[in-house]
Amino acid sequence: MKKTSSNKRAVRAKSQAKAATKVATKTEKASAKRRVFFFGAGKADGNAGMKELLGSKGANLAEMVNIGIPVPPGFTISTEVCAAFNAARKRLPQDVKVSVLAALRRVEKIMGAKFGDPKNPLLFSVRSGARASMPGMMDTVLNLGLNHQTVSGLAAHANPRFAYDSYRRFIQMYGDVVLGVPHERFEGRLEMLKERRDVTLDTELRSEDLQELVKDYLQIIVDHTGAPFPQDPEVQLWGAIGAVFDSWENERARRYRRLHGIPSDWGTAVNVQAMVFGNMGDTCATGVAFTRDPSTGANIFYGEYLKNAQGEDVVAGIRTPQPINEASKTTDTANLPTLEKEMPPAYRELVRMYQKIEKHYREMQDIEFTIQDGKLWILQTRTGKRTSTAAVRIAVEMVKERLISKEEALLRVDASMVDQLLHPTLDPSAKRTVIAQGLPASPGAAVGKIVFSADEAEAKAKIGERVILVRIETSPEDIHGMHAAQGILTARGGMTSHAAVVARGLGKCCVSGCGSLRIDYATGEMRVGEHLLRAGDLLTLDGGTGEVILGAVPTVTPKLGAEFGELMRWADQVRKLGVRTNADTPHDAKTAREFGAEGIGLCRTEHMFFEADRIQAVREMILATDGSERNRALDKLLPIQRADFVKIFKAMAGLPVTIRLLDPPLHEFLPHTPDETETVARAMGIAPSEVQAKVTALHEFNPMLGHRGCRLAITYPEIYRMQVRAIVEAACEVKQSGVSVKPEIMIPLISNVSELVRLRTLVEAEAAAVFARYPKLRLPLEIGTMIEVPRAALTAQEIATQADFFSFGTNDLTQAGYALSRDDAGRFLPTYVAEGLLPEDPFISLDQTGVGELVKLAVARGRSTRKDLHCGVCGEHGGDPKSIHFFAQVGLDYVSCSPYRVPVARLAAAQAAIAQGAAAKQARKLRGPARKSAKQPTARKRLRKHQ
Amino acid sequence: MKKTSSNKRAVRAKSQAKAATKVATKTEKASAKRRVFFFGAGKADGNAGMKELLGSKGANLAEMVNIGIPVPPGFTISTEVCAAFNAARKRLPQDVKVSVLAALRRVEKIMGAKFGDPKNPLLFSVRSGARASMPGMMDTVLNLGLNHQTVSGLAAHANPRFAYDSYRRFIQMYGDVVLGVPHERFEGRLEMLKERRDVTLDTELRSEDLQELVKDYLQIIVDHTGAPFPQDPEVQLWGAIGAVFDSWENERARRYRRLHGIPSDWGTAVNVQAMVFGNMGDTCATGVAFTRDPSTGANIFYGEYLKNAQGEDVVAGIRTPQPINEASKTTDTANLPTLEKEMPPAYRELVRMYQKIEKHYREMQDIEFTIQDGKLWILQTRTGKRTSTAAVRIAVEMVKERLISKEEALLRVDASMVDQLLHPTLDPSAKRTVIAQGLPASPGAAVGKIVFSADEAEAKAKIGERVILVRIETSPEDIHGMHAAQGILTARGGMTSHAAVVARGLGKCCVSGCGSLRIDYATGEMRVGEHLLRAGDLLTLDGGTGEVILGAVPTVTPKLGAEFGELMRWADQVRKLGVRTNADTPHDAKTAREFGAEGIGLCRTEHMFFEADRIQAVREMILATDGSERNRALDKLLPIQRADFVKIFKAMAGLPVTIRLLDPPLHEFLPHTPDETETVARAMGIAPSEVQAKVTALHEFNPMLGHRGCRLAITYPEIYRMQVRAIVEAACEVKQSGVSVKPEIMIPLISNVSELVRLRTLVEAEAAAVFARYPKLRLPLEIGTMIEVPRAALTAQEIATQADFFSFGTNDLTQAGYALSRDDAGRFLPTYVAEGLLPEDPFISLDQTGVGELVKLAVARGRSTRKDLHCGVCGEHGGDPKSIHFFAQVGLDYVSCSPYRVPVARLAAAQAAIAQGAAAKQARKLRGPARKSAKQPTARKRLRKHQ
Repeated sequence: MKKTSSNKRAVRAKSQAKAATKVATKTEKASAKRRVFFFGAGKADGNAGMKELLGSKGANLAEMVNIGIPVPPGFTISTEVCAAFNAARKRLPQDVKVSVLAALRRVEKIMGAKFGDPKNPLLFSVRSGARASMPGMMDTVLNLGLNHQTVSGLAAHANPRFAYDSYRRFIQMYGDVVLGVPHERFEGRLEMLKERRDVTLDTELRSEDLQELVKDYLQIIVDHTGAPFPQDPEVQLWGAIGAVFDSWENERARRYRRLHGIPSDWGTAVNVQAMVFGNMGDTCATGVAFTRDPSTGANIFYGEYLKNAQGEDVVAGIRTPQPINEASKTTDTANLPTLEKEMPPAYRELVRMYQKIEKHYREMQDIEFTIQDGKLWILQTRTGKRTSTAAVRIAVEMVKERLISKEEALLRVDASMVDQLLHPTLDPSAKRTVIAQGLPASPGAAVGKIVFSADEAEAKAKIGERVILVRIETSPEDIHGMHAAQGILTARGGMTSHAAVVARGLGKCCVSGCGSLRIDYATGEMRVGEHLLRAGDLLTLDGGTGEVILGAVPTVTPKLGAEFGELMRWADQVRKLGVRTNADTPHDAKTAREFGAEGIGLCRTEHMFFEADRIQAVREMILATDGSERNRALDKLLPIQRADFVKIFKAMAGLPVTIRLLDPPLHEFLPHTPDETETVARAMGIAPSEVQAKVTALHEFNPMLGHRGCRLAITYPEIYRMQVRAIVEAACEVKQSGVSVKPEIMIPLISNVSELVRLRTLVEAEAAAVFARYPKLRLPLEIGTMIEVPRAALTAQEIATQADFFSFGTNDLTQAGYALSRDDAGRFLPTYVAEGLLPEDPFISLDQTGVGELVKLAVARGRSTRKDLHCGVCGEHGGDPKSIHFFAQVGLDYVSCSPYRVPVARLAAAQAAIAQGAAAKQARKLRGPARKSAKQPTARKRLRKHQ
Repeated sequence: MKKTSSNKRAVRAKSQAKAATKVATKTEKASAKRRVFFFGAGKADGNAGMKELLGSKGANLAEMVNIGIPVPPGFTISTEVCAAFNAARKRLPQDVKVSVLAALRRVEKIMGAKFGDPKNPLLFSVRSGARASMPGMMDTVLNLGLNHQTVSGLAAHANPRFAYDSYRRFIQMYGDVVLGVPHERFEGRLEMLKERRDVTLDTELRSEDLQELVKDYLQIIVDHTGAPFPQDPEVQLWGAIGAVFDSWENERARRYRRLHGIPSDWGTAVNVQAMVFGNMGDTCATGVAFTRDPSTGANIFYGEYLKNAQGEDVVAGIRTPQPINEASKTTDTANLPTLEKEMPPAYRELVRMYQKIEKHYREMQDIEFTIQDGKLWILQTRTGKRTSTAAVRIAVEMVKERLISKEEALLRVDASMVDQLLHPTLDPSAKRTVIAQGLPASPGAAVGKIVFSADEAEAKAKIGERVILVRIETSPEDIHGMHAAQGILTARGGMTSHAAVVARGLGKCCVSGCGSLRIDYATGEMRVGEHLLRAGDLLTLDGGTGEVILGAVPTVTPKLGAEFGELMRWADQVRKLGVRTNADTPHDAKTAREFGAEGIGLCRTEHMFFEADRIQAVREMILATDGSERNRALDKLLPIQRADFVKIFKAMAGLPVTIRLLDPPLHEFLPHTPDETETVARAMGIAPSEVQAKVTALHEFNPMLGHRGCRLAITYPEIYRMQVRAIVEAACEVKQSGVSVKPEIMIPLISNVSELVRLRTLVEAEAAAVFARYPKLRLPLEIGTMIEVPRAALTAQEIATQADFFSFGTNDLTQAGYALSRDDAGRFLPTYVAEGLLPEDPFISLDQTGVGELVKLAVARGRSTRKDLHCGVCGEHGGDPKSIHFFAQVGLDYVSCSPYRVPVARLAAAQAAIAQGAAAKQARKLRGPARKSAKQPTARKRLRKHQ
């Protein structure tokens, strides 16, 4: 047999297991602090508050025991030991081993069975459990304690078939996880045996078959590792514990942590727990249940189970599970018997327990249970993942049920997931060629090209393609592809399968368990009935119905549920930050207003310049050879811009509208190819060479840092003059017609107060000339500036003398602050994020440490000059929840974001206000008796003043 | 007669003069503070310390009177009145008028003559005098007090010719300055008269002629202003005072202030002083003298005078003046009689006075004197402008004469002028076609194209051309052109002419009084003997010899005088900042070391990449399609780079050498045109399309903010690995050979500490591999980073954990901090500076407010993490004196600049240290008794530690 790499892995794993059994060095003194926490029979060393130490699962187990939930007894080895283990070159500290053995003895007493007892053996599960849930990312070993002797005892105690089935499962799992033997080896042998016996299901194999399988499996171990399978249960235990600690550092786990921003120094705890069996016969079952429907949020008990199976069978999605009750039935499972019908007492106990659990945790729970010989055991409970729709509904309904407060409800909904609710669904009136029906595993709609692997999904997404990831079933190795895809389609697995759970967490549309798919990875084809689809073909998924649709179906804007409206109203009551929108057109303005925008924070005038009816005049303006030619071109633009502003002011009646004067360099408006140049020249009746000459003259090495923004206005003041005239004339016209208008003129790219001094004068003079024509009109006009150049932030105390408001352009501030061009960063930024050099793309979530520091400084310095300085943000970060929290912290008055992000921002702003309130409370507590602090106008007050 | 614009100006001026005579409004109460300061006959209200109030000239006059210098009596109206005058719509406050008249009475007593007395009239000069010298920028009126009556008195008292000559001069000057009548009008009449009388010189005109001229002049006034010339001497006085205050705001003065950074709110004082006459006959003279030679600095009394002339005749440079003594003779004036010979008693008195004056002021003085009927009057004395050579020599010699301290000497030399001493002079071995000989008015050499106007000079210089400004004579209107030109050549004027004085101040080469030139502005031609030169022709000037040379002559590096070496040694004793150099080649390194560089602060490795023998390998490296190809190319580069470093380490033996790893984006090394692409492709044996494809692939929108610096090394670590290997191998090799080496590896464009964590590891690993081959060698290697990205400055506390040193790249920091691309800023930055939106080009002198703030923050934050963090600057600002002061203030350890700027930096660093010492002393004084402060290692100590 060749030494393969997995062979090497096996050797390494084995030596680790050995190392773990070695006594730790003397320098490692037994800590006085408890590192092994017992739980069981109504008594636990830990509780729910100890997640850092016990991991989420361990803390929950302790908590459940404390409140009287029937949890199999066991103990948790704390997360601190994970670091100690890895630091001590994969050895378990001696004091931990002593404590483990002591706890093990207590479990034996409760279960009335002994670890390694050939007659009545006690078996254990060994699982990871980190502070944050990392489903399926780390290793687990079940049925630990089985060996030649104990398997016979188990056979005698239960039945031989079950015993040998458990043993062969244990050998495979231990072999895979601890000894590094590829699981395909075992599975191949199993398949061969089934073929030989001419059976389809594992359950059809007889006890003798399984005994034969065990022998084969043990031989695989010897072949692969060069050593026999460890027979000593204690050696097994140390090996499994070590492997779980070790798995914290595996590639999958590391990638998951990166994706979810989990620090690697948290470590995992290890939970060692007595095994209970759902696969000891037909009075046994195992299942997963949610205390409410995780898809819709409806207050129904919702779950799936498998009879005569272990928990892994449910999670892996290999067998389609049965619904636990009528409410859990789907089209696919409508005809299957329910747990309620099949095992009424166990079901009743489960209902009693779920109610107890939800009431205790005051949160929707995801419960794993096992029924052994009719007795219900709760294996774990944790906060259930849910769709955004469900999150909103559950939060709002729990407030009405008086389970939680409104503030808690607001904190329960992940703001970054809210825009999922707003994303288009499939146009109901569009024709659909439904080619298959799967489970509606995660709502929403997805349109994209078929890809059959996660890597391909990632690669295509990187170059901007929308893809649908199609898999027989998904596994943790596919996470990056699921992230990259628009939607996920699987042939196997239920509503709680890996694909479904992860997709909901990611907010991706997912159709799972679509059994009619015939997927061939090798040829890159998929058959569905008469249809043959290939990689690259277009496909549409409806996550709400589970339909798989041929081609691309148009999408529509969703209607929001009443609960959503309610939650948003609460958010508005709580938040201190205003929420405006970035909108350049009346249509965008209207949409944003419907989503609750309180004004426009950024209206870019250059987008208006690009439209067909005006680009010609813009080009004439740029190509003008003297001031009078330029003015003629500007005169053509004036009425067009004015008309745009009239519409926008009307759409935003009564709300502030911040208009940014021309920002991009002029060459952006000129043609870029010879063909375009030709066209433009012809249209203008001049020589192409003339156009080309101007293009060449205006070429810039670094346009980002070039002749743009207010710098244009220093050189060509007539452009801003025209724009100001258009804005103020439009405002006067609209106001004249009886509609309230609040124009705010914003000057971009200020780096020095001197620029603002000059341009403020220009704006004021131009505005005054227009106002003079409307002597009876009173129209307040604010003049402010973008803060998007680091120097502007640093000299904000000077700039504030000339500005009525600041609006942070965090995109540009990030570009300059990082010396990073967003257009060019594509070559290296993804590597930076993937390799952990940057926690996140700083254009998506504000870099609080560096760029954020500039924002903070600028707000403080600006307000040191001008106390009532109105400050907002209009970069794309204005719609990112994490960034919004930061903006709230540093005292901004409002954020402005794209229309669809407005609800996200409203919720995030509310959450920020709640967090600030909590932090302030905490601070007051630490400070002792309240002192009177100098009265400062709150952000909200400032905001009101300005709106 | 048409109403011309000068006509309008005259009307305006007249109304101003009238306004000035009006009594100020009642609200303007007589100030309790003195605003008119008398001086004369050994008594003065003011003194030298009152420059702010009295202006430089007024304070000096008072001081001179105080120390017993024979100054014509008079009084100074303070600078405060300038603001009051301009605020009160050009009216003089009533209290000022009262004080003026009182002071006037005292002058009358001293002079034994009366203002307006028809028999023995006292005349006055009215001159501006601001805090800073602004030669020729503002208006002056002489001979004030003459009218129909007094002119007869003067004629009787002196002689009629002189009286009417004075009167016609007064009418012209008053007409021009106060009434706005163009002086050409008067000059035209004078020329006509001379023609009619068939004479060449003014002095050949008879008294009767002048009387006729006076009549004509008076008529010109009536014609032009519509009113007779004011006959009341008091009206004349108020008019002249008002005009002088008003001239503070004229275009010339404003431009000069902009050029020299003089705040416009300083205002000017007005000095009203009794007239003494150098033009009352042959026992009269007027002149200018320097207490030392302003060109060489030699301790000789140096000056020029004109017999029977007024001061303006000397300054204007219209007549070539005589030397005052033998020492002042030049080739041109060798045959003229000296003052020493012509008027020995007056000369002896002048010598006595100059010695008294220099001893008192302890500084080289520029003295204006007049001899009236053999009696010497000193009109003014001020610190004399001088060449850099002279400044150094005077400062050093005055220390030896115990006139001043070493610290004072160091402060006496303008650091920004020092590099003038180092600038190339003409190659003595080069062939010179000398076509003319002028006066060596300001040293240095200049090569450029001929231009005939200041505007043209400015325009050409803006587009990067080197020009020589050729003028018949220069006037204050030409300042901007002199600024822009490489050198100045005039046909008229002596060593103290406008051209000479201004050129020395500007540090420009100037040849003046080159009488053989025939300049025709109209045709744009210049004749010199047989040669006809046109605008655009090349010309060379030798400011050291006064030679005018045809074509362009090669230049050489100058030798520095012994005084310079001495001053530099003193500077080194005083300064706390280290001075290193930016040098990429062994040659530059050697030059810089000779100039006193204490190491290399920036060795750019990319310049090495561009040389012919290596660019090919660099391109192969970039075009490599996989890692092994890339490594093959890098293997070719390794020995080449190593050899470069060996040479540089040897040139810098014993001194630190900071080497920056590759910084520019890779596309900079690729061809840019189809032709180049073809060539490269052929050389590499690949298709041009392949090269083009790579060029396209590497194209960046904003290369400044793109894939460069350390970002390259994250993507292609093998490049830095090769460079580190080359550096460390070279260092080991050199050290092995017995030469001390101090390599410092610098990583560019760090924006996040995570980058430095990774690259420091890379550098350390690569270095360790080399060190392993030299087990006996002990070679300290420092690893540090550029701070050139705003975010790096803001997060310096984090970055310092990974850096042994910081080196501020202030060029890039300015670009990012300002969001301003240096390559593109040419389109608008000059406008910004010209229009006062920016005080200076921030790439020349550091923007202390904004970019400087980043430097300050970074030093403080970096040292908060790492107390002994070594901080330097390697941007071009490292050679700018103002910026160096700032760097010293914020506690940098060293500056690094181009080789020729090293002496500048040494001196500026010394001056900064002295200023800091003075500031600290002042602070201690304000703080009261000394407190013990926590010991901090000084910058110098830190520096030593590192060198």
